[in-house]
Amino acid sequence: MLILMKKSATPEQINAVCDRVREIGFTPHEIPGSIRVAVGITGNSGAVSPENFMHLEGVAECVPVSNPYKLVSREVKPDPTVVNVGDVSIGDGSSLALIAGPCSVESRDQIFRTAEAVARSGAKLLRGGAFKPRTSPYAFQGLKEDGLKLLDEVRREFDLRIVTEVKDTETLDAVADVADILQIGARNMQNFSLLEACGHLRKPVLLKRGISATLKELFMAAEYLLSLGNYEVILCERGIRTFETMTRNTFDLSAVVMIKHHTHLPVIADPSHGVGVNWAVPPLARAAVVAGADGVMVEVHPEPGKALSDGQQSLTLDEYRKLATELTELAAWQSDHG
Amino acid sequence: MLILMKKSATPEQINAVCDRVREIGFTPHEIPGSIRVAVGITGNSGAVSPENFMHLEGVAECVPVSNPYKLVSREVKPDPTVVNVGDVSIGDGSSLALIAGPCSVESRDQIFRTAEAVARSGAKLLRGGAFKPRTSPYAFQGLKEDGLKLLDEVRREFDLRIVTEVKDTETLDAVADVADILQIGARNMQNFSLLEACGHLRKPVLLKRGISATLKELFMAAEYLLSLGNYEVILCERGIRTFETMTRNTFDLSAVVMIKHHTHLPVIADPSHGVGVNWAVPPLARAAVVAGADGVMVEVHPEPGKALSDGQQSLTLDEYRKLATELTELAAWQSDHG
Amino acid sequence: MLILMKKSATPEQINAVCDRVREIGFTPHEIPGSIRVAVGITGNSGAVSPENFMHLEGVAECVPVSNPYKLVSREVKPDPTVVNVGDVSIGDGSSLALIAGPCSVESRDQIFRTAEAVARSGAKLLRGGAFKPRTSPYAFQGLKEDGLKLLDEVRREFDLRIVTEVKDTETLDAVADVADILQIGARNMQNFSLLEACGHLRKPVLLKRGISATLKELFMAAEYLLSLGNYEVILCERGIRTFETMTRNTFDLSAVVMIKHHTHLPVIADPSHGVGVNWAVPPLARAAVVAGADGVMVEVHPEPGKALSDGQQSLTLDEYRKLATELTELAAWQSDHG
Amino acid sequence: MLILMKKSATPEQINAVCDRVREIGFTPHEIPGSIRVAVGITGNSGAVSPENFMHLEGVAECVPVSNPYKLVSREVKPDPTVVNVGDVSIGDGSSLALIAGPCSVESRDQIFRTAEAVARSGAKLLRGGAFKPRTSPYAFQGLKEDGLKLLDEVRREFDLRIVTEVKDTETLDAVADVADILQIGARNMQNFSLLEACGHLRKPVLLKRGISATLKELFMAAEYLLSLGNYEVILCERGIRTFETMTRNTFDLSAVVMIKHHTHLPVIADPSHGVGVNWAVPPLARAAVVAGADGVMVEVHPEPGKALSDGQQSLTLDEYRKLATELTELAAWQSDHG
Repeated sequence: MLILMKKSATPEQINAVCDRVREIGFTPHEIPGSIRVAVGITGNSGAVSPENFMHLEGVAECVPVSNPYKLVSREVKPDPTVVNVGDVSIGDGSSLALIAGPCSVESRDQIFRTAEAVARSGAKLLRGGAFKPRTSPYAFQGLKEDGLKLLDEVRREFDLRIVTEVKDTETLDAVADVADILQIGARNMQNFSLLEACGHLRKPVLLKRGISATLKELFMAAEYLLSLGNYEVILCERGIRTFETMTRNTFDLSAVVMIKHHTHLPVIADPSHGVGVNWAVPPLARAAVVAGADGVMVEVHPEPGKALSDGQQSLTLDEYRKLATELTELAAWQSDHG
Repeated sequence: MLILMKKSATPEQINAVCDRVREIGFTPHEIPGSIRVAVGITGNSGAVSPENFMHLEGVAECVPVSNPYKLVSREVKPDPTVVNVGDVSIGDGSSLALIAGPCSVESRDQIFRTAEAVARSGAKLLRGGAFKPRTSPYAFQGLKEDGLKLLDEVRREFDLRIVTEVKDTETLDAVADVADILQIGARNMQNFSLLEACGHLRKPVLLKRGISATLKELFMAAEYLLSLGNYEVILCERGIRTFETMTRNTFDLSAVVMIKHHTHLPVIADPSHGVGVNWAVPPLARAAVVAGADGVMVEVHPEPGKALSDGQQSLTLDEYRKLATELTELAAWQSDHG
Repeated sequence: MLILMKKSATPEQINAVCDRVREIGFTPHEIPGSIRVAVGITGNSGAVSPENFMHLEGVAECVPVSNPYKLVSREVKPDPTVVNVGDVSIGDGSSLALIAGPCSVESRDQIFRTAEAVARSGAKLLRGGAFKPRTSPYAFQGLKEDGLKLLDEVRREFDLRIVTEVKDTETLDAVADVADILQIGARNMQNFSLLEACGHLRKPVLLKRGISATLKELFMAAEYLLSLGNYEVILCERGIRTFETMTRNTFDLSAVVMIKHHTHLPVIADPSHGVGVNWAVPPLARAAVVAGADGVMVEVHPEPGKALSDGQQSLTLDEYRKLATELTELAAWQSDHG
Repeated sequence: MLILMKKSATPEQINAVCDRVREIGFTPHEIPGSIRVAVGITGNSGAVSPENFMHLEGVAECVPVSNPYKLVSREVKPDPTVVNVGDVSIGDGSSLALIAGPCSVESRDQIFRTAEAVARSGAKLLRGGAFKPRTSPYAFQGLKEDGLKLLDEVRREFDLRIVTEVKDTETLDAVADVADILQIGARNMQNFSLLEACGHLRKPVLLKRGISATLKELFMAAEYLLSLGNYEVILCERGIRTFETMTRNTFDLSAVVMIKHHTHLPVIADPSHGVGVNWAVPPLARAAVVAGADGVMVEVHPEPGKALSDGQQSLTLDEYRKLATELTELAAWQSDHG
């Protein structure tokens, strides 16, 4: 259920509605809109009667919400959510967020060279993993705290905002100190304890779709974050698992279209993980822009052949520079037509 | 094995090579290139020795082919194949083939109104099914011969080339009389008897990827056509089956990129079947263009709500007109950058 | 809609109901049951009013059918269908049909040795392909007519019933002359022209589930056969395509349980194609029996290492003999408990 | 690399080998076998030279390990691992572990009634969740600590061993205090921080296959546990995600066969989650036994219609009693033939 307040509703009237929601045992969520405020209700398993609220002052309308996802839904909040990080606006419909960087921070030299090139290409967001979840216990698991320190240095040096993965609640505080955007990886999309911990933070979260997650499950995972008060959530399509073996995953570009339609959250495309081979990344990155993605995240490396992880899907610094220019051109086209 | 002839090789020298291939029990395939001719060998299960050919005059080099698909492979023919239909060139890298029309031909009025709008939008290829394979024996199976007659009429009336599906060998002759491009549907991608019959024709074939076909299987199905001498083959991505239920299929745009990379055949994207909801078709159609598709096929209907099949994924005639303009703009961009 | 006749209904009364169905433009299907006859109606897209029939003599009840599959449904015919081939009863709930043989008939020696061993193991049905649909145009496509002749010979020599695949309408008559059960392969499950041709025959059909067919689609494919009057249909689970690569397909044993529950048709399990490695076939064959399969089809070969197709998933003749004994024991257990 | 010690090797000789492994920078794993000890080496990314060890006393042979999973592999330890919990032996090849209970502990009455029935059916292991990971933040998340207390009570009252899920590192100690077997759920199969925490415990772990995990990924997840010294690992097949919608998941019984073949770990089948409808659970449970599963875990509930989670896939107490008898009979058959 969604309670739409009148345009003229006062803060006191809104509070009174929230109090009434709590009184009958549920949780109110104040959702600001461009012209008026709405109050979402969660905690109810069945329908809630509008009669509880219709008589309260300032209430315009009570609207049932048909989806299991509530707070992420466009039904509940028609205006798109814009996440601001430094001077980057993600989801505003007119600018394209460019995120680039290596899979893992590997060395001072590697991350400095990459960060410099990324900054010069016009991208303002640097990705790079310090704590890496890996399928094998014997594989490189990241530089950990040392990686975080390097990220912190390049942030200042090149005025970049940092996107880096948090893999567990134990290291969340350390990662959150450095990250401007906390990335929750595909394998952790349904790590509900981690989602809850990030829901209590007030810091943007980039939530990746699980490797075989339905879109509805992705929306429900995001709902964990919003229901705890963290509304700065960005969704990310990074490919799903199918029977096809010529690509690493199947990059599901329709997810971008569905996310924009069914939710108000910004969406980032990650074609590097989606397809898994570097020469296929640029065409899919271009495609993501004209399909309506709010940003594109690409893996780059000064020497892909020597990368400790994901080298085969990383662009060189020069390849990225060329791609960034193309994406910016297409974003301008898309902003005029989309 | 691929035998590359010298630039200066004479027709007689090429014939001598083909004769030698037959002599040792295999099948030669002459493959014309922009600068020189190659001769492909099929029918061998293992390796063929280059010694059989190196001493023949006009032979430059013998190259082993590592893939199970031979004649469709870029290894064997690096130049892209261009399929010409009327004054439309599909696969030439500079023009975009626009194909539009209803799922099924339903009535004279419906197909005439659609054809007129399609022609006015600038598209030169009209799609429309007369024989419809349907999951249920009780569903509308098309107007059959009457549908073919209507397609023949609109072709002349609006100077359109016709793309229509052939569903079995029994009706192949009748369909081929009207079709400028024969469509082989997803369910028939591995109907080998139909592939063989179409391989003996000299008419373009649009081969759709099966609903859970790997790309390698798609390439092998095309190989059936080429191995029988029909080189005018166009591949088509139309979505694959996955666990996701919010979309009809999962539109696999990376297939477009893989097809262009691994084969020399043109590729058409069909986002209508790929996603299955009409409002999601335009963004995915745009995406296909900048990912490198040689054409885009879209379902349109004068009154989608009344369509006998696929109404929910059909654009109105007005929506298509707008989309066609956008796609043409992006194709110009892509031709400059791609 | 299903019209249930009274136990005492006369043939004339049943005919009168069928005539009435035709009068209002639909198709009647007489469905004999153990205690009374029912008349199914197809050809209607929406609901048919019971008022058309309730006043006719001999009519007991009119029951709406909720599924898109009608004639195959347990709703319509609660009694299981039993397909009799020679002295083998498939689907009677007390005997287990054992089908064994090579993927392809390869030579006189191969098929005679196999047939002898199969007959001695107690199996009464021999499988073997004469016309083989193959992914590659360059792969062995079967001995064709010569293969059929060999199957005809071993049938007489060893008193076996023959299960062999029909791959197209062109060769259907030739195959039907030899086959006791016509197999329609996974790739042809939605070859509707072939289904229609087999629907007009009065000969048992073994219909394999398509490689990524849903169960509902399998039921609809069977509906093509039944709607044309061929009620002797046996369904076959042979594995579906998933992301797992350690097995050839994913053998979906729950399909056996679902088929028995939702339809009245017998079901055969094919673990050889399901898993694709010979040492894994016996445990899955055993499993199929206690899950309720009416029969088990297994690939066997005198020398699996030399098979022209599917050698890696074929049992030796000795391995099959041992397995047949185990399956018979478990079938006895299942018949007591299932 | 695996270093096989002579049968006569002394503890000192084994220690000397382990010391040498550490000396060259890797990690030794002593693996006891029925006739002799082996020492596995991990931490190396490439090959390790046998020359480091062949001269040491007591060393019989150095064997390269070809799989990315080392310690879980049958190559490394041909003898099956047997996990003992109370007087239950899981994986000994002759007894069948019966695990039953509700999805969630819901109330004192519910868990006592269930536990009593489970104990009377002959099962010695009770499952029941206290901490429940749920797709929706608004769904019932379990009784948490109160649920653990109830499990502790029924354990004593009915002399049952407890299998219960641990969902995060924060609650691991509390859960481990009550659990005889710690269950790691499908969504946490690649929660590497949780795997590491459980790897440091010396308590049996039941590791469920992720919803779209390949078997190789399941083996690598188990490798996390073994590489940290916890060898008491039981794998569990619970269905994978496919395109089929008639069942909740696709129960992949071939996984049981593959696990027994490629690893030395015991395997439990969970048909309840695999198929998702209660009437389909018994046939699939029977199938799992004759396919070689070491145990079967089934959801039961005194009143499935009133269950707070998974009611539709739960058996009644009476249905379970009947099933337990059948499974025991088939296990006896399997122990003789398998």
